[in-house]
Amino acid sequence: MRPKEEVRGPLGIIAGKGPLPCVVADAALARGLSLHIVGIRGEASDQIERFPHTWIKWGEVNKLFGALESNGCRDLVIIGGVSRPDLSNLKFDLGAIKNLPFILSLGKGGDDSVLSRIVGYLERKGYRVHGAEDVAPELLAGLGVLGQKTPSAEDRADIDLGFQVVSALGHLDIGQAAVVAKGRVLAVEAAEGTDAMLARCVELRQSGRVHQQGRSGVLVKAPKPGQEERVDLPTIGTETVIRAAAAGLAGIAVAAGRVLVAERAATIEAANRHGLFLVGETLAKEANP
Amino acid sequence: MRPKEEVRGPLGIIAGKGPLPCVVADAALARGLSLHIVGIRGEASDQIERFPHTWIKWGEVNKLFGALESNGCRDLVIIGGVSRPDLSNLKFDLGAIKNLPFILSLGKGGDDSVLSRIVGYLERKGYRVHGAEDVAPELLAGLGVLGQKTPSAEDRADIDLGFQVVSALGHLDIGQAAVVAKGRVLAVEAAEGTDAMLARCVELRQSGRVHQQGRSGVLVKAPKPGQEERVDLPTIGTETVIRAAAAGLAGIAVAAGRVLVAERAATIEAANRHGLFLVGETLAKEANP
Repeated sequence: MRPKEEVRGPLGIIAGKGPLPCVVADAALARGLSLHIVGIRGEASDQIERFPHTWIKWGEVNKLFGALESNGCRDLVIIGGVSRPDLSNLKFDLGAIKNLPFILSLGKGGDDSVLSRIVGYLERKGYRVHGAEDVAPELLAGLGVLGQKTPSAEDRADIDLGFQVVSALGHLDIGQAAVVAKGRVLAVEAAEGTDAMLARCVELRQSGRVHQQGRSGVLVKAPKPGQEERVDLPTIGTETVIRAAAAGLAGIAVAAGRVLVAERAATIEAANRHGLFLVGETLAKEANP
Repeated sequence: MRPKEEVRGPLGIIAGKGPLPCVVADAALARGLSLHIVGIRGEASDQIERFPHTWIKWGEVNKLFGALESNGCRDLVIIGGVSRPDLSNLKFDLGAIKNLPFILSLGKGGDDSVLSRIVGYLERKGYRVHGAEDVAPELLAGLGVLGQKTPSAEDRADIDLGFQVVSALGHLDIGQAAVVAKGRVLAVEAAEGTDAMLARCVELRQSGRVHQQGRSGVLVKAPKPGQEERVDLPTIGTETVIRAAAAGLAGIAVAAGRVLVAERAATIEAANRHGLFLVGETLAKEANP
């Protein structure tokens, strides 16, 4: 874990998809920080318009830095997933063209290496990049059973294997998630993302490649070892629970303190409603792949 | 590598999907071995009827052993993929019921642990289980470039990363394949199989999660470290080449001497026609994950 730096306002929030940018903004206001959101068109939700904001398109690097500068933002949170833009179809502004070698280098490598390079680039420009959890620590999954249901002994064995898989993958900068049922690894996440992986688990059952009665198996999510946790902590939410339920899984296990739970109350309520367990585990299991 | 035992006839061939059971049967006849094929209904191709054969259904364990015994087969080759049967829907014969605890144990664990247990079970019954390549060594992928095209330096880097991924996965009894493009792991095979993984790579491109001009990326296939190679060597064929081409990949790399190439001439011809490289690599790279 890196040492935490104090978050100072005005806070710049660079916003990708989903509800988390607004959650972070609300948390920042509650802590008395002023803020400015820079939303990426086609990624961020219109909800960010509740706050002081600027819209930019992919490639508008000058506009990004202009918005941060004119609002006095030196402290940043980058939050919410983004699609990897198609570099060959972007319209770059002058700021982007100045930084073209750097931007073109983003077309290569795994997610983590790309995100680390972006954070390093911002730091070299004098910005201080914080994790969403530094502003809103209540987003982090806690330790232990989070909902009403508790994993069985069989679930526990699947959870252990799942953390081993995610750890082995993470060393190679692959995904942050896997699905294990009855000691068999059903699916491993790479570029497709967790939602697509869970959709695949539904297909595995429908096509008869996997058989089962009742709920079994677990979705495991954890950050990659050594990953840039400030910008890419794995996240679960109600959608994750609904998809895990559709895949017939018994529950979800995440690395406690290192996975974000969006819409915490709603996510736990969804797990309870679908009869799934939701559990935060210590990372000791992850340390021994 | 296990020590090779001489293959003696009459050879029993337990046949799953695809062309390989007939290839092995032809190779056995060419070597002067008599044979009997036991085809699994719903899995094996009708082509096996060219040879002396018996059809069985999943669960007909007595019929399987009866066919082998009445034809004098003590040497076996088990070849061709099978779906995992739904144990709860099978009709078991008496032979199966006698072996029920063993059969039920097959519902758990990864592919390799299941196959190892089946081989161990047959060996305890006195059968000698051989690899398809012991009868038809010409099935094995050779070392070096197999078609007309040669991998570029960028392809080489993707190949190296791909073998690292497959090796890291194999230790956990996951799949035998991965797709890497420009240093990024696009897809990892688990229960869905190689064809479904390649179909996913097509989707990744169509949905805009992955961008590229021209062909790039490689499909890597290799056995899991320490896997039961007699019954589950990874296989590629024309279908693999066609799907890799549809996914926009630049080529296919396999572990030389440890991956089967079905319909060798047609597979190489398909790679040449689609402009893909096809290369057999030594496993040194796999030894250092």
